[in-house]
Amino acid sequence: MKETAIGIDIGGTFTKFGLVDVDGNVLMEGSIPTYTHETIEPFLEALSQAINKGLDSINDSFEIIGIGIGAPNGNYYEGTIEHAPNLNWKGIVPFIDMFTKYFDLPMVLTNDANAAAIGEKVFGGAKDMNDFIVVTLGTGLGSGLVTRGKLIYGHDGLAGELGHTNVYPDGRECNCGKRGCLETYASASGIIRTVFKLLATNNIDTPLRAYTYESLTAKKITEMALAGDPVALEAYEYTSDLLGLKLADAAAVTSPESIFLFGGLAKAGDILIEATKKSFNEYLYPGYKGKISIRLSELMDKNAAVLGASALVWSEIANSEVIRVPQQARAV
Amino acid sequence: MKETAIGIDIGGTFTKFGLVDVDGNVLMEGSIPTYTHETIEPFLEALSQAINKGLDSINDSFEIIGIGIGAPNGNYYEGTIEHAPNLNWKGIVPFIDMFTKYFDLPMVLTNDANAAAIGEKVFGGAKDMNDFIVVTLGTGLGSGLVTRGKLIYGHDGLAGELGHTNVYPDGRECNCGKRGCLETYASASGIIRTVFKLLATNNIDTPLRAYTYESLTAKKITEMALAGDPVALEAYEYTSDLLGLKLADAAAVTSPESIFLFGGLAKAGDILIEATKKSFNEYLYPGYKGKISIRLSELMDKNAAVLGASALVWSEIANSEVIRVPQQARAV
Repeated sequence: MKETAIGIDIGGTFTKFGLVDVDGNVLMEGSIPTYTHETIEPFLEALSQAINKGLDSINDSFEIIGIGIGAPNGNYYEGTIEHAPNLNWKGIVPFIDMFTKYFDLPMVLTNDANAAAIGEKVFGGAKDMNDFIVVTLGTGLGSGLVTRGKLIYGHDGLAGELGHTNVYPDGRECNCGKRGCLETYASASGIIRTVFKLLATNNIDTPLRAYTYESLTAKKITEMALAGDPVALEAYEYTSDLLGLKLADAAAVTSPESIFLFGGLAKAGDILIEATKKSFNEYLYPGYKGKISIRLSELMDKNAAVLGASALVWSEIANSEVIRVPQQARAV
Repeated sequence: MKETAIGIDIGGTFTKFGLVDVDGNVLMEGSIPTYTHETIEPFLEALSQAINKGLDSINDSFEIIGIGIGAPNGNYYEGTIEHAPNLNWKGIVPFIDMFTKYFDLPMVLTNDANAAAIGEKVFGGAKDMNDFIVVTLGTGLGSGLVTRGKLIYGHDGLAGELGHTNVYPDGRECNCGKRGCLETYASASGIIRTVFKLLATNNIDTPLRAYTYESLTAKKITEMALAGDPVALEAYEYTSDLLGLKLADAAAVTSPESIFLFGGLAKAGDILIEATKKSFNEYLYPGYKGKISIRLSELMDKNAAVLGASALVWSEIANSEVIRVPQQARAV
């Protein structure tokens, strides 16, 4: 029987799920809105119904090895989602403990960027690497750092917050409560802020002046940059300069073979990559020069979040690490 | 027979060595000058003679399990010392390959700060920790980062260069060729620079004005800070502020349980620790607050460098990792 894993990616707006085999083939996929559920219980109810409906629609026979979950502020050790600023559910949500009421399967949960990193290793460009970093440039900036072939979880399961390293002590206000965090510059929300800063400081004629702060999107800025708009290009340059600076700092900690960029901003391709490389190499410790590549994720055009979440199951099983077996499963 | 390990710490000025048992007892120790040897061969000759002389002086019987070497720019994977700015031997020195001509024993080499980190785990304050950072505040700033109980070596064996993370892109010139590296601020040489900057910007009456740049030492600044000199205290405050900022960045990568400070500047004790804690907690990602301690190394008053180097042998054997066995030993 075909071995499969359920991958679930919990985002602020939508939660995506899918059934994935060991080769990365997606046998079934779907999504439900996240933000419409004010509390966790009805969300879990809706999610499990949608997954079961999806599973019922599959004609082939299959075996489910486990469920992998990527979530903002996901704590690997505890199976919890902790104080996620972009989710309605405040405090510490014991996600796995609650979700085992719906599925009697081994479960593993980590933050979404960690899931993306494992996805890159299992299905993407990091297949042959043991030391690499994946940076997700979404609404915020997430990161998963792998060393010796394994994710850095830290003592509390919450390591890998490059988005909250400090660019300027008195810089932009961040949702986390601090100022000057990298994600207030290098992210979808960050580049919108940068465009507005540029519109305020220069007189360049650009269609970007027709947008309100609320109507402007990173996608639009990327389109305009690819079309050659000077303000959009300068915004990308500013973003890449700061991203390169802080990636050089991160490289000084873990000395990775590659850094993979992923997410909306990465769709600018060379505009982002080349400028980030330039800045990165300028700030990089000379002992590392020429040894670390910065490249696009190889999961860019795929349902990477779901692949990454399902890859957690393969990765954890393949590495014979502790799998979180729910109470019910243990009792069987 | 008592199992022992030889620990060797190669510094720019002196190279220290010792024979250490599993409990951290030093059965023999000594040192030779490093800088007087313009090339590597006569240095190895002198070092091996000094070690053998020391071993001959021991009356008890003992067995040597291996040799652990801590060296600036030490590459764990290759057993090499690579482009160390403070050593006479330029380029890539194949240290272990050369040293096996003198000792037919398994050898392991890494950078001195990594050795200090393993020393902290085997003999110091990190005995029960799997995730921690050791920062050595010597002439430069070295760091060893441990996650899942093992050092982060990176893909090239050279990870852990917190001293070369960037504080100010246009900051102080660093020996590495970059500008604004943390070690140009938070180190023995950095605090001397800071005192001179303060002497230039304020009019405070202080005995520090009697020193030339070359005659002033970090030790003197530490003594004056402990005695209450306002300029020395302000220099420590400035140092601690930047150190705390960059340690908060490092914590966002590895989420350690503790950060241990070690070396000359750490002798200022609370003056350094309390101000660094304050800054660290100000810049720390809120998700980590209250969970990460900053403390003095517990090897401060011991021959920590030699203990750390010998600890490499115990650590590598205990973890059943690859031990670098020299050709001769394999042929036996």
